[in-house]
Amino acid sequence: MKRVGVGLGKHIIAELFECDSDILDNVNVIKESLLEAATTSNSTVINYSFHRFKPYGVSGYVLIAESHISIHTWPEYGYAAVDVFTCGDKTNPWKGLEVLKNRLKAKRITVMEITRGVNVEKEYNGYWKPRRRILREVLT
Amino acid sequence: MKRVGVGLGKHIIAELFECDSDILDNVNVIKESLLEAATTSNSTVINYSFHRFKPYGVSGYVLIAESHISIHTWPEYGYAAVDVFTCGDKTNPWKGLEVLKNRLKAKRITVMEITRGVNVEKEYNGYWKPRRRILREVLT
Repeated sequence: MKRVGVGLGKHIIAELFECDSDILDNVNVIKESLLEAATTSNSTVINYSFHRFKPYGVSGYVLIAESHISIHTWPEYGYAAVDVFTCGDKTNPWKGLEVLKNRLKAKRITVMEITRGVNVEKEYNGYWKPRRRILREVLT
Repeated sequence: MKRVGVGLGKHIIAELFECDSDILDNVNVIKESLLEAATTSNSTVINYSFHRFKPYGVSGYVLIAESHISIHTWPEYGYAAVDVFTCGDKTNPWKGLEVLKNRLKAKRITVMEITRGVNVEKEYNGYWKPRRRILREVLT
């Protein structure tokens, strides 16, 4: 029997309901919130992109060294789809989610945590060696 | 009993195993593959960002008008964590996933489809009116 739940990353999928709709429609506040979530979860920001739709709604993405944080909002329904996906032991995606829950003033939330890359380390260790390492071995 | 599975978006979470590790480590090919996945799923690209890690691994996302497509690769394990999240009736996230599966040469794949924003339309219709519309009503 393989160990279950031992993987490369934790992917939190959160449904935020009954949020403050004006906040959900404010691209600047959404951007600040996701960047704060990245910092609070102890992630390292690589890049980000945010977009406000017409007539309303915001989508945004923060690429972090440990994977990503994303959001898509529907102000007309007070709803936001949030993902906080982090890898490694140093980060805590739940802390990032807590920031978003508070900043968006979600009154109701459902959450699922999915472990990504389960057992790949065990199964594929040694599967691939970077080419330059192989070259180095050939040359020495 | 509420209807189940009627939501705003389809979020496909795919685990791609036994991929071509050289492809997983090639940021340009990964970028092309995700952009092709966006087009093939009939999505509209808003922005994107891709990053290659040292010593290996690639992370990237394509922010689309219909949500996002993201990837995080571990060439050393032949593994990629892929998300294809689309909204609306015009897009087909499964076609996007098919592109990625083929381009990354995944020999094994596990997939989960999560419906995001279930029942929010029913529950929150009329919850919020954009401020300018309310103003217009007041002014006229």
